[in-house]
Amino acid sequence: MKTSLPDCDFAGEGVCTYENTAENEALLRDLLQKIKPVSTTLCQAANHRLDNLTKPIGSLGKLEELAVRMCCIQNKTLGISADPLRIYAIAGDHGVNEEGVSAFTQDVTRQMVQNFCDGGAGINVLADTAGAELCVVDLASKGGGYPNHPSLLQCKIAQGTHNIAKAPAMSREMCLRAILIGAELANKAQAEGFPAIGTGEMGVSNTTPSTALYCAYLNLLPKDITGAGGGLDQEGISRKTRVIERALSLHSETISGGDPINILASLGGYEIAALAGLILGGAANNQLVLLDGFIATAAYTAAWKLCPTVKDYTFFSHASAEAGHKQILAKLQIDPLHDLGLRLGEGSGVPLALFLMRCACNTYNQMTTYSDTEVDPPDNL
Amino acid sequence: MKTSLPDCDFAGEGVCTYENTAENEALLRDLLQKIKPVSTTLCQAANHRLDNLTKPIGSLGKLEELAVRMCCIQNKTLGISADPLRIYAIAGDHGVNEEGVSAFTQDVTRQMVQNFCDGGAGINVLADTAGAELCVVDLASKGGGYPNHPSLLQCKIAQGTHNIAKAPAMSREMCLRAILIGAELANKAQAEGFPAIGTGEMGVSNTTPSTALYCAYLNLLPKDITGAGGGLDQEGISRKTRVIERALSLHSETISGGDPINILASLGGYEIAALAGLILGGAANNQLVLLDGFIATAAYTAAWKLCPTVKDYTFFSHASAEAGHKQILAKLQIDPLHDLGLRLGEGSGVPLALFLMRCACNTYNQMTTYSDTEVDPPDNL
Repeated sequence: MKTSLPDCDFAGEGVCTYENTAENEALLRDLLQKIKPVSTTLCQAANHRLDNLTKPIGSLGKLEELAVRMCCIQNKTLGISADPLRIYAIAGDHGVNEEGVSAFTQDVTRQMVQNFCDGGAGINVLADTAGAELCVVDLASKGGGYPNHPSLLQCKIAQGTHNIAKAPAMSREMCLRAILIGAELANKAQAEGFPAIGTGEMGVSNTTPSTALYCAYLNLLPKDITGAGGGLDQEGISRKTRVIERALSLHSETISGGDPINILASLGGYEIAALAGLILGGAANNQLVLLDGFIATAAYTAAWKLCPTVKDYTFFSHASAEAGHKQILAKLQIDPLHDLGLRLGEGSGVPLALFLMRCACNTYNQMTTYSDTEVDPPDNL
Repeated sequence: MKTSLPDCDFAGEGVCTYENTAENEALLRDLLQKIKPVSTTLCQAANHRLDNLTKPIGSLGKLEELAVRMCCIQNKTLGISADPLRIYAIAGDHGVNEEGVSAFTQDVTRQMVQNFCDGGAGINVLADTAGAELCVVDLASKGGGYPNHPSLLQCKIAQGTHNIAKAPAMSREMCLRAILIGAELANKAQAEGFPAIGTGEMGVSNTTPSTALYCAYLNLLPKDITGAGGGLDQEGISRKTRVIERALSLHSETISGGDPINILASLGGYEIAALAGLILGGAANNQLVLLDGFIATAAYTAAWKLCPTVKDYTFFSHASAEAGHKQILAKLQIDPLHDLGLRLGEGSGVPLALFLMRCACNTYNQMTTYSDTEVDPPDNL
């Protein structure tokens, strides 16, 4: 695995030349092999510590579960940490926008990348509030490069996908590139001292490919899980549902073939593929991987189809208000941390999850034990 | 209303001499009259701002609802804030402990007050993590005073309640004193620059009086809502249920009388009464009042019976894992912010809610509007 993005031009307006086409299939296989199940040997010691903290046994609920998982991932029984955390907000455009599946025009992806750089978007404020770093990545937005900005990585490999209702979103080769760039972003964070990473994205219309991916991977029906995205009315939702049905029909052979990469290439998006790679890379690096909502879970589903072990490293921040997300989470047997009716995307759930994970770490690391105080333990200890 | 606690000895080992018995009924009436419904005239302006932030309309879900409520409480359409917030962790003991209703001995209340002062408890770590101030208040723990500590207010008015299965927990007079001290704690926070306060408590066995209060106020049955508290086994829960049934039977005349203070005096606890007063005082002061879990909701129910308008000022941090809490919240038509299986008490949910309220304030105050950027608004704005 590469540990940096040497072929990307982070300095300005260049276009990523990262190719290595011949090697990419092999690089992905190597990546998947690097992901190992989390050892549970430390669970007992972690639970022992939790039970001896000065509180009723189990009374910190999910915070205790988080602490035990972090002990296992970080292979330590003290000093677990979810900080610092870097959120990668990866931008990509979607050809399917031309079908009228969004309340926003495609230009908004680019405008919002600029807004991320200017610090005015929801993810900026939430990341700041939680003390998370935000790194904006232009992977495949429409148009050329952006003015230089210290928070922006420019590694554009395309200017959006093809319209999935008419053609594959991207080639397998390009999909692999996006996945590997995502994995390298995880490596870059690891090399720069981030034990935790979070998924963010910006891509007008990207609930459409995400919904198509859920249908393809999890055998769900568009009519059951297609939602309003950025704000469609009922007529818009019906139109979006039909567009997704057409896409699924067009790519039915690929879907029944069952190859997760081919499905991702046909129905997904560049930022979704890169997020799948980020998740895989984070898991390979033993990082904590915090996921946002509807789009992130679609990327997770692709990663999980490639390597179910990613589940050991992932933390789901919230159940989105986007129709179908709760049903999808239930199907994936995932119990998210929050249920706040969020449907912003951008990575906005990640800072909220980070705070809870920080609470889990701090209570685990810092609370006094019964052995260290004169507090009498409960009669069931 | 007093604005300080002049008769309490904050300096050390003294016992509060706060009495003013003759005036207390009048003071409570004054307090209740000071509580005004929140004006909703600013809702429209607040929602207009939210809709014009660079995000899909409504996409911040409950964070948007929180922001609108804070605008109305704080009577402003910009610059809302939940900081700084002070948590009052109020300690009191419970005579009913002698019935075997807890996994902990009564000494643990005192030991945990010391643990709060030493910084080793869950509430210390969580308050620190969220940047909330913790103020420990000894109102009615068993035993004498504590060594001086800058975070400890000593205003002891009793050394625990009577056993509610055998007698009223306290006299109406003492209950009024506890309520008024709670209200003065809200005033003290207000005077010291805290627009937000949170409820915390320490009182071994206090899920028992809380459960009894729910049954009395909300016409629920002990068998339906009695839980494990600090960690009872099934036999312990059955015993606790029978104890609560005996208490309800003993005080049935008071309960059917319907006077909220008399019910609180008969079945409650000093710290619960003080928390009810804290909630009433916070509402009277237009403060944001953040509530923890099972015990706090019992105090809220008492305050709400005295003045339903407190609902305008209160924010419920979480659904507790204590049996019955969700049913109680549903009966009170309250939708809490978190559902994390917490059942620690101490005020531990408050820091978690504070973080979400801070997120709500910051996104509302700081995000860019469509008017201020070149981001195109959605077609439904």
